Amino acid sequence: MATLIKNGTVVTAADTYQADVLLEGDKITCIGADLTCEGADEVDASGKLVLPGGVDVHTHLDMPFMGTVISDDFETGTIAAAHGGTTTLVDFIVPTQGKPLAEGHATWRGKAEGKAAIDYGFHMCITEMGDTTIDEMNALVEAGITSFKMFTAYPGVFMADDGVIFRTMRWAADAGALVMFHAENGWVIEALVEDFIDKGMTDPLYHGLAHPPESEGEATARLMALAEMADAPAYIVHLTCSQAMDAVTAARDRGVRAYAETCPQYLYLTTDDMARPDFEGAKVVCSPPVRDQPHTEYLWRGLANSDLLVVATDHAPTNFKGQKDMGLGDFRKIPNGMPALETRLHLIYKGVADGKISVNRFVDAVATQPAKLFGLYPQKGSISVGGDADVVIWDPDKLVDLSAHALHMRVDYSPYEGMQVRGGPEKVYSRGELIVDGPEFLGQPGRGQYLARKKFDYV
Amino acid sequence: MATLIKNGTVVTAADTYQADVLLEGDKITCIGADLTCEGADEVDASGKLVLPGGVDVHTHLDMPFMGTVISDDFETGTIAAAHGGTTTLVDFIVPTQGKPLAEGHATWRGKAEGKAAIDYGFHMCITEMGDTTIDEMNALVEAGITSFKMFTAYPGVFMADDGVIFRTMRWAADAGALVMFHAENGWVIEALVEDFIDKGMTDPLYHGLAHPPESEGEATARLMALAEMADAPAYIVHLTCSQAMDAVTAARDRGVRAYAETCPQYLYLTTDDMARPDFEGAKVVCSPPVRDQPHTEYLWRGLANSDLLVVATDHAPTNFKGQKDMGLGDFRKIPNGMPALETRLHLIYKGVADGKISVNRFVDAVATQPAKLFGLYPQKGSISVGGDADVVIWDPDKLVDLSAHALHMRVDYSPYEGMQVRGGPEKVYSRGELIVDGPEFLGQPGRGQYLARKKFDYV
Amino acid sequence: MATLIKNGTVVTAADTYQADVLLEGDKITCIGADLTCEGADEVDASGKLVLPGGVDVHTHLDMPFMGTVISDDFETGTIAAAHGGTTTLVDFIVPTQGKPLAEGHATWRGKAEGKAAIDYGFHMCITEMGDTTIDEMNALVEAGITSFKMFTAYPGVFMADDGVIFRTMRWAADAGALVMFHAENGWVIEALVEDFIDKGMTDPLYHGLAHPPESEGEATARLMALAEMADAPAYIVHLTCSQAMDAVTAARDRGVRAYAETCPQYLYLTTDDMARPDFEGAKVVCSPPVRDQPHTEYLWRGLANSDLLVVATDHAPTNFKGQKDMGLGDFRKIPNGMPALETRLHLIYKGVADGKISVNRFVDAVATQPAKLFGLYPQKGSISVGGDADVVIWDPDKLVDLSAHALHMRVDYSPYEGMQVRGGPEKVYSRGELIVDGPEFLGQPGRGQYLARKKFDYV
Amino acid sequence: MATLIKNGTVVTAADTYQADVLLEGDKITCIGADLTCEGADEVDASGKLVLPGGVDVHTHLDMPFMGTVISDDFETGTIAAAHGGTTTLVDFIVPTQGKPLAEGHATWRGKAEGKAAIDYGFHMCITEMGDTTIDEMNALVEAGITSFKMFTAYPGVFMADDGVIFRTMRWAADAGALVMFHAENGWVIEALVEDFIDKGMTDPLYHGLAHPPESEGEATARLMALAEMADAPAYIVHLTCSQAMDAVTAARDRGVRAYAETCPQYLYLTTDDMARPDFEGAKVVCSPPVRDQPHTEYLWRGLANSDLLVVATDHAPTNFKGQKDMGLGDFRKIPNGMPALETRLHLIYKGVADGKISVNRFVDAVATQPAKLFGLYPQKGSISVGGDADVVIWDPDKLVDLSAHALHMRVDYSPYEGMQVRGGPEKVYSRGELIVDGPEFLGQPGRGQYLARKKFDYV
Repeated sequence: MATLIKNGTVVTAADTYQADVLLEGDKITCIGADLTCEGADEVDASGKLVLPGGVDVHTHLDMPFMGTVISDDFETGTIAAAHGGTTTLVDFIVPTQGKPLAEGHATWRGKAEGKAAIDYGFHMCITEMGDTTIDEMNALVEAGITSFKMFTAYPGVFMADDGVIFRTMRWAADAGALVMFHAENGWVIEALVEDFIDKGMTDPLYHGLAHPPESEGEATARLMALAEMADAPAYIVHLTCSQAMDAVTAARDRGVRAYAETCPQYLYLTTDDMARPDFEGAKVVCSPPVRDQPHTEYLWRGLANSDLLVVATDHAPTNFKGQKDMGLGDFRKIPNGMPALETRLHLIYKGVADGKISVNRFVDAVATQPAKLFGLYPQKGSISVGGDADVVIWDPDKLVDLSAHALHMRVDYSPYEGMQVRGGPEKVYSRGELIVDGPEFLGQPGRGQYLARKKFDYV
Repeated sequence: MATLIKNGTVVTAADTYQADVLLEGDKITCIGADLTCEGADEVDASGKLVLPGGVDVHTHLDMPFMGTVISDDFETGTIAAAHGGTTTLVDFIVPTQGKPLAEGHATWRGKAEGKAAIDYGFHMCITEMGDTTIDEMNALVEAGITSFKMFTAYPGVFMADDGVIFRTMRWAADAGALVMFHAENGWVIEALVEDFIDKGMTDPLYHGLAHPPESEGEATARLMALAEMADAPAYIVHLTCSQAMDAVTAARDRGVRAYAETCPQYLYLTTDDMARPDFEGAKVVCSPPVRDQPHTEYLWRGLANSDLLVVATDHAPTNFKGQKDMGLGDFRKIPNGMPALETRLHLIYKGVADGKISVNRFVDAVATQPAKLFGLYPQKGSISVGGDADVVIWDPDKLVDLSAHALHMRVDYSPYEGMQVRGGPEKVYSRGELIVDGPEFLGQPGRGQYLARKKFDYV
Repeated sequence: MATLIKNGTVVTAADTYQADVLLEGDKITCIGADLTCEGADEVDASGKLVLPGGVDVHTHLDMPFMGTVISDDFETGTIAAAHGGTTTLVDFIVPTQGKPLAEGHATWRGKAEGKAAIDYGFHMCITEMGDTTIDEMNALVEAGITSFKMFTAYPGVFMADDGVIFRTMRWAADAGALVMFHAENGWVIEALVEDFIDKGMTDPLYHGLAHPPESEGEATARLMALAEMADAPAYIVHLTCSQAMDAVTAARDRGVRAYAETCPQYLYLTTDDMARPDFEGAKVVCSPPVRDQPHTEYLWRGLANSDLLVVATDHAPTNFKGQKDMGLGDFRKIPNGMPALETRLHLIYKGVADGKISVNRFVDAVATQPAKLFGLYPQKGSISVGGDADVVIWDPDKLVDLSAHALHMRVDYSPYEGMQVRGGPEKVYSRGELIVDGPEFLGQPGRGQYLARKKFDYV
Repeated sequence: MATLIKNGTVVTAADTYQADVLLEGDKITCIGADLTCEGADEVDASGKLVLPGGVDVHTHLDMPFMGTVISDDFETGTIAAAHGGTTTLVDFIVPTQGKPLAEGHATWRGKAEGKAAIDYGFHMCITEMGDTTIDEMNALVEAGITSFKMFTAYPGVFMADDGVIFRTMRWAADAGALVMFHAENGWVIEALVEDFIDKGMTDPLYHGLAHPPESEGEATARLMALAEMADAPAYIVHLTCSQAMDAVTAARDRGVRAYAETCPQYLYLTTDDMARPDFEGAKVVCSPPVRDQPHTEYLWRGLANSDLLVVATDHAPTNFKGQKDMGLGDFRKIPNGMPALETRLHLIYKGVADGKISVNRFVDAVATQPAKLFGLYPQKGSISVGGDADVVIWDPDKLVDLSAHALHMRVDYSPYEGMQVRGGPEKVYSRGELIVDGPEFLGQPGRGQYLARKKFDYV
């Protein structure tokens, strides 16, 4: 099987140039001028961009959650991802407390196997620290799970105290693992939530007001200080606000190996969306919440300057009817999260079209940096010889509707209902196989492979 | 009883001028040119400064601690304070866990009564939050205990979680109380201590290395964020390092009511002192620890700029022989703290002599600001009509030896052994009574009065 | 002549207390409880504040300017000042270029003599540096003119290049002089002005837009760097914006002896006032211009934190009719400046009433700090024994109309027309003489004395 | 002519991967796995890196200067460059004052023609602004000279006032040009130089002390403010210190299009080198000067974080004997500058070997970013299909002596005498031609081509 993509504009995290790209078997084997290859499928990409497939390092598929289950499973989610130009994802294992991490690992592997339509790896959530936890984590690193997520939020549920975090960071620095953090001050949030509920302020908006940006800034700054003292790398997931951004850049400027990710929703949606009447605000309830408009501009600038290295999705959809509406009259019961996996590249590419970031930074943020940070590079994340033939032919002029009916995620609404953007995938290849062709999904559920990821070695 | 202090230079937090000062009964009744007062004791203060008596808002007297007891009690401590020009102190009540706060209050009142030679008030330490704690705190505010200390250090002992702190701050903002904080990250310290002990690094120096400035900076920044979200004032005790200083000034510059105190030891002593051989380093072991030399310069500048509003002592002496030496071979067992109550004014006045701060800022930091912040002003803290006649006649030329043998604190060493400074009290009046005259203490133990302090109303 | 002010609340830069104040001859001679003084005029100040007379260190009286003359001379201006509670001012000598500084000095002394109703001193503007200029400046220092103003604005007119500024700073550091700066980038302003005029944008608003805050921030930061390299103190006049404020505090925090002044107009008026139709905006045209509203909040915070040490006025009134209207159709011809001398204390006291600053900081900013910085303390600037009996009995409840008809400055409008504030002088004493009593001015023009100021010795 | 580079590791600004690279004619035509090409020269690059040729955007060749002439001309300089792996340079035209810019252009084109062994372009220095200057600059932009250098230093010689700079920036923003700045405060330097000379302090070290980092920081911050107000991009050449770095990053973080370059000498040499006895310090005299050691660490971090986008050389060699020694006894007469063109890649690659920067950032800083910023990309600056076949086969293990005798620049000393580094070019191709093979230079002087550069379009 070979495919020769002709006349496209290859875009990497650094370069933009006209070339033909040859996919043979599951690899990119040649990038050249005027290539020919007997027997290969020739595809004309004139006027199109040839991009590496997107790498989404923050998804939640088939996850039990707040008394319900995420509406996308590994089949529906990965197919939607492919439609959006994402060919690799890294999902979070949430182990059962009191049970071995390996059990969680097995469970999540089982969820994906036979279903995933694109390649996938896993992070492990660490929510308690027992006598054997470190040993279990070492075993996971050997099994290719080289990143671990911890929380400064959700006291009594997921929250780890600073001592556990600090010790885990020091372990990770030695073990070649990367620790990722949900950074909000869970104690403050708990107090504020209680207050609003006591006062009968139960609308979705109060979810947001109970998670102030100062709380996220505080937790982020704290984690940066812990990373500095531990001499360990630290990765902040779903960063949303200037306070947290400043904490990361200040740390990095004093030499801390500090990395941060944001998500499209924090670049587009605002408190105003959360304040929409008729419980519509529930559609964009997530944690941390979307913020006031000036934060979105701040994040765009951070994205342009590589202060925010990665854009992932925190994809965690639940239906408005039957799931989100569990929180009618009590925002605490609104399942957090929203659909995002399919629309990531569209929304970030819009930043290119709008002159906010370069096309190279776009590729860097949605594919190259996540692959490098999470031990997938150079197999994934770039258009380079020897890498997996995960390639997107991107039509910069295509008009794409981000309404629910036009998308493929298994959820009954879109946070961007009615929004149209220019630019989207025309064809998507995964390990050389054409899995998306225009509106058609051509791949098979279950074709996706588990990715044992390398140890952390980012410079 | 009247005393007329003639020809001195009156110094307040703002002003410096020649005038006579008349003390009648327990009050300052007149400040004027060429005063006369029949029957008054006339004292010539030519060439001398006339200062308000010092107000030390951070002392520990007669406190059970780390398996021993602070070597100064309210008699020896307050007499030493008087010799150093301090006429008011505010000590910390450490209540027994599980017992009513009122019991702790009664205990500490009992320790002071009949012994204290100068006036005194109390702060209450809050180390747990039970169902009735807020009610008990409200009662204490009514009784004149309007400030409460909490800890982000000492997990399992004194540490409060951020939720308890946040809720207490919000209560305080309404109740007219001020919450004070020992700001270090106790979890990190615990991990580092464990490490050093595991590696057999047990000398006093490792106490310091286990309490890095980044940990203090982190906790301080966190408290500032909590205060910002709670819209409450916050007071940081014994601030030692640039990281914490920056956290306070950044908070203040964005509108937080942030206040900070340092202590003389952090302005003079350094890691080098803690590294002295033959266990000598134990003499300066305290928490937070003394820091590297550049921090001392940073603090002096902060003191000059009023970024550090207050200089108190954290007076907590134990004898080198029989107490400090409990920690030979295990720095964890060295009683923290050092003698400081008597030498505060000498050491800060040296900053005036050295051109680092103005004489007004000296008075402000050692007397006026602490009195204002802790509800004692205008009764205490200034040379002003109607205020208590707590007055120090300060000889700027007097050579003072800070060695143990020349001082009055009940402890067998001085952190400043062999050091001589210029400037010290010649006479000290407390409520109009001459209690120190040159080397003589003339007052009576027990003459000191309990001060019911006003609610927090600092602007 | 003696006056005994009974039962008032004395306010200094540090203290607030009830006391009687005795004025004998031209001095404050006694502050005490229940004072009596035979033969003295007794004045009851119950419920009133007893403040030091205001010290305004930035005025322009009887100054030829932009083809016209400032509408207040030393008689009308100082009488208006007295009505507003200001008893000392320091005016700027603008020497004729090419002529000896001494000639300018003589001219300005002549303008004041026989006219001034309150005490006054002078700063000297330095707009060129000839061979003898330093010698002339040394002579002026001996004559009590110990501060010198330079400009980074007005190229070809007042602007000094950075080399002249740097050399002057180094001279001043040795000579005991303080250099003051009008900090805007004159080159940028010139280019922007030209642009607007070319485009026919001639309304008052464009004056403001041609003086962006970034230009002021730049010049201020530059001066801070020059002061740092020269190891000299520097004083920024009429600071208006966050950019300049940040430059000053950053410099101070790294050890530069940086001082800054703002004026009431920058705390109250905004770009909106400059945009008022019918040429009304011309009434508030000044340089630097008034700014957008957020800057006013920033300045209030800076005033509260002592980042802005001084509030002066830059009093420079011209009539709307006949003077300001010279600029109809060409903002370049609008005489810059506005009336301010009389209303300074009212407007800053409003900050006390509104809870933005303490009453002590109010006194500090309008009286004590300017007196200290400019060599007038302790003669002026506080309520202290031995100081000049420049005293204001301030009624905190009095309702004061800031409209033109209710004020005494010789100008046909008020920037605060229709505004009412609470708090104003009831009686004003200058060197013991009652010069203002309610609405009456009782002093004589010419009674004001020239103040030979001391060398710079601020710590 | 075709060359097939086999088995090397291709390194771009983003990617690192194993591939064969085919050069046909003057272009890179193919990058692939297991390539074959009949008739092509096969070169084995196993264990080697395949890098884009270096792009040095800051050189001075054959330039009259301080009464002498730079010792390298376009022949010797470009040959040395090639030996060091640099295949493109952009030199500065210094026009004669009072003469048309076009004349300078013609002169410099003449210097290069027939001599240059690698491709070259030009920047134009702007040191005066006459009536026709803007027209002349527009003509230059059309001729491919799209960047212009201005100075805030050298008053009376090169210095432009802020008005000229501001207007030029605004022109550039429209014209598609980039303005580059030598950022030091020339006025301050002039005063300090005068002082040292007056005091007889004439050694090379005083050159450095007369150019303090605060002066560079000031000028850089000023330029950032001007760029902000002009809404124009600005590029700082030879940035040396933390103060200037902070000015650039602060500007960038508030949205200014701010770019900065440093040079190897500022990353390695320090004040200690300038203080070497026997006039040896003169060898490293340049402007701005080398700084104290902490600045070098700051710059390395800035380089790692892309705060410093570019590393160029400011190559400006003069012989120690006969040229540098003109300044014996008077540092003002030491020709500024040092040899650097040949050793740039070695010295920056050492940062890769030492773990300070990634190999991709190395390529980015020495080739890709300079090509992008100065209108040479994608022709120059990367390993990408369609780009010029300027390729370096880099041996990461090769031991390279940086002593003068081992180098090719026409100058009698090396600032790095005796220093050995690992990593250097094995073969260098320029437009497909092998011009350096091991120690041999195989190219012809005059083969280098003039590069008409594109307008500024950096995102």
